[in-house]
Amino acid sequence: MAVISPSRRLRRTPFSDGVEAAGVKAYTVYNRMLLPTVFESVEADYHHLKNHVQVWDVSVERQVELRGPDAARLMQMLTPRDLRGMLPGRCFYVPIVDETGGMLNDPVAVKLAEDRWWISIADSDLLLWVKGIANGYRLDVLVDEPDVSPLAVQGPKADDLMARVFGASVRDVKFFRFGLFEFEGREFVIARSGYSKQGGFEIYVEGADIAMPLWDALFKAGEDLEVRAGCPNAVERIEGGLLSYGNDMTDDNTPHECGLGRFCDTQTAIGCIGRDALLRVAKEGPLQQIRAMTIDGDRVPSCDRAWPVYGDGHKVGQITSAAWSPDHHTNVAIGMVRMTHWNSGTVLEVETQDGMREAVVRPGFWA
Amino acid sequence: MAVISPSRRLRRTPFSDGVEAAGVKAYTVYNRMLLPTVFESVEADYHHLKNHVQVWDVSVERQVELRGPDAARLMQMLTPRDLRGMLPGRCFYVPIVDETGGMLNDPVAVKLAEDRWWISIADSDLLLWVKGIANGYRLDVLVDEPDVSPLAVQGPKADDLMARVFGASVRDVKFFRFGLFEFEGREFVIARSGYSKQGGFEIYVEGADIAMPLWDALFKAGEDLEVRAGCPNAVERIEGGLLSYGNDMTDDNTPHECGLGRFCDTQTAIGCIGRDALLRVAKEGPLQQIRAMTIDGDRVPSCDRAWPVYGDGHKVGQITSAAWSPDHHTNVAIGMVRMTHWNSGTVLEVETQDGMREAVVRPGFWA
Ligand SMILES: Nc1nc2c(c(=O)[nH]1)N[C@@H](CNc1ccc(C(=O)N[C@@H](CCC(=O)O)C(=O)O)cc1)CN2
Ligand SMILES: Nc1nc2c(c(=O)[nH]1)N[C@@H](CNc1ccc(C(=O)N[C@@H](CCC(=O)O)C(=O)O)cc1)CN2
Repeated sequence: MAVISPSRRLRRTPFSDGVEAAGVKAYTVYNRMLLPTVFESVEADYHHLKNHVQVWDVSVERQVELRGPDAARLMQMLTPRDLRGMLPGRCFYVPIVDETGGMLNDPVAVKLAEDRWWISIADSDLLLWVKGIANGYRLDVLVDEPDVSPLAVQGPKADDLMARVFGASVRDVKFFRFGLFEFEGREFVIARSGYSKQGGFEIYVEGADIAMPLWDALFKAGEDLEVRAGCPNAVERIEGGLLSYGNDMTDDNTPHECGLGRFCDTQTAIGCIGRDALLRVAKEGPLQQIRAMTIDGDRVPSCDRAWPVYGDGHKVGQITSAAWSPDHHTNVAIGMVRMTHWNSGTVLEVETQDGMREAVVRPGFWA
Repeated sequence: MAVISPSRRLRRTPFSDGVEAAGVKAYTVYNRMLLPTVFESVEADYHHLKNHVQVWDVSVERQVELRGPDAARLMQMLTPRDLRGMLPGRCFYVPIVDETGGMLNDPVAVKLAEDRWWISIADSDLLLWVKGIANGYRLDVLVDEPDVSPLAVQGPKADDLMARVFGASVRDVKFFRFGLFEFEGREFVIARSGYSKQGGFEIYVEGADIAMPLWDALFKAGEDLEVRAGCPNAVERIEGGLLSYGNDMTDDNTPHECGLGRFCDTQTAIGCIGRDALLRVAKEGPLQQIRAMTIDGDRVPSCDRAWPVYGDGHKVGQITSAAWSPDHHTNVAIGMVRMTHWNSGTVLEVETQDGMREAVVRPGFWA
């Protein structure tokens, strides 16, 4: 593993002091900002996440804010998911596509009000696409990045910890909905969501000044719950089938190839810029699609590049995320496979930087 | 210095195998791709760059390609620099601004033909802004990222090395112009440019398959010139006043604040999206501007965040890049300072993460 040179361009977050005090061991860079990847070890972090509760600095999930009379119209231009039935207080996982139907991002859209939205982005400067579209179509809408840094509280004891800091009513928040809750006299959007399958919340922390006081309060309240600093876990998110933009898909891929067809209402999402391009693939289905896979043998090397996947002597896909699973005692992986070879049980060959391995297509993800 | 977790999202380059074999010690992430920052040490790399010749993997300088009848019109929409007199075969350093005049990037524009351009970008997904504008204004132009990875050859012996691989006529290429040169039966755009003040070339390597053969040929041809693998040098680029987008400026800043007013023809750049917003600042001048500065005392800590700068007890600016200069025996720095305190010789206080230092505004950069 190489060392990373610090610079202002790789932005610190309002929680970085807490993350460092908690002993962060490695980072990735996501939206030009530091995202912790390891505290104790990927394996120890994994077991702890599945049994206790963790506080994650996910400030890198930057928000693109839309404000103004054309905000809802602009939001619908960006995604093939039909947003007409979406009420304020709801979060939607939305594929964002360009005019060819290629994925530009896979964020969570947060509807604060009819004329005010946050788009909680994955790793691409979606702000620039949204600003370009708003300008080109001369929409009446303000588009910018607010001072909001999400803090995730994840794991089976997340409800208990959150109730101690925000009150018992936080337990009533339903999946992918949010409520407003108070801390030190300020209101926070808190949603039941997060980049793990262990359950929990995301606090949209508005104002960098309140970040460390909230961080400290969560750790103080959770001492007997064994609360720890954590981060999205490379193994747990693969088991759960949570995709990573830039790893598992790029702008070359349609949402349907990513298995996100269920978030596309191509018939009714009127106004979506990529709608025409997606109509055919929505009807006929994609030629390749994301699959859960296992890779045999012991621990794979780090998946730092796309690994070609072969079937019957031809390239039929690639694996883009892979890691050893302590719970499943095998390497769990996410790949894109052509339809000729995507059926569950198909045995394939995968070319890692350290040589060939056998891979098997799974019926689905693990979680 | 923290460790970086490898993933496909932090893209390797076509030269990464060569970079690793040459013993790279640290990276940064730039345009979601790995950029080497240190080989022997920042100081040793610095002295070598100033005395010999280095080959730099600057694949992270990704290209945004514009093709089609509206390519030139689109290019002018992006920048306040007047492009009417620009002939094919020329490179222009161009500020890119949004509708408020805020900098979105500071790339090199390469005019291949009237209807074909490359924009060699700094660290932001300019592709998304350009695609959004092209779509919103319904322009007849294709916008995408081609398989082009620049390789820079920098240092006083760059001409000698390049002549051995591409022939003597490469010496005739003028500053910020390019020619087409052959290697192994393929043609390459080669410009006299690069992110150092030591002179040299940039080879726009088209096709990942030819990358390592060219890399190897340059090292073989340059053995007696003491050619080494190198990278943009944090100290040398500050001495030279080469700005770094995301470090020294963001979309909060106008080109005039960045000292890039000489690249703005706000009166004549008709069609530029940010022109109206820039007219007033072009006439009246900015309220704050980039300055070269020295910071007293011994080696400063790494400038991993903006350092507030104080004058007369008030915040009057910030320093965003700083490093110890072996040749000048002081800390060299780049900062943004308000006009009340920007005169050469003004003594200011700067707040680093390790405490306060004294800083002095310089009459200009060093190179
Ligand atoms: N704020 C927030 N912002 C984010 C992420 C997040 O994590 N939370 N993660 C990244 C975006 N990608 C995802 C991917 C998956 C999910 C997700 O949660 N998917 C669930 C539920 C989807 C649904 O049913 O609506 C699933 O099981 O697939 C959310 C964001 C970046 N931005
Ligand atoms: N391909 C290429 N692409 C690039 C860079 C590069 O380095 N070369 N660097 C980044 C963009 N930023 C700059 C900053 C400075 C210069 C530069 O070279 N400036 C000279 C000359 C400017 C001029 O006179 O036109 C100067 O002295 O200021 C070029 C790109 C990213 N993309």
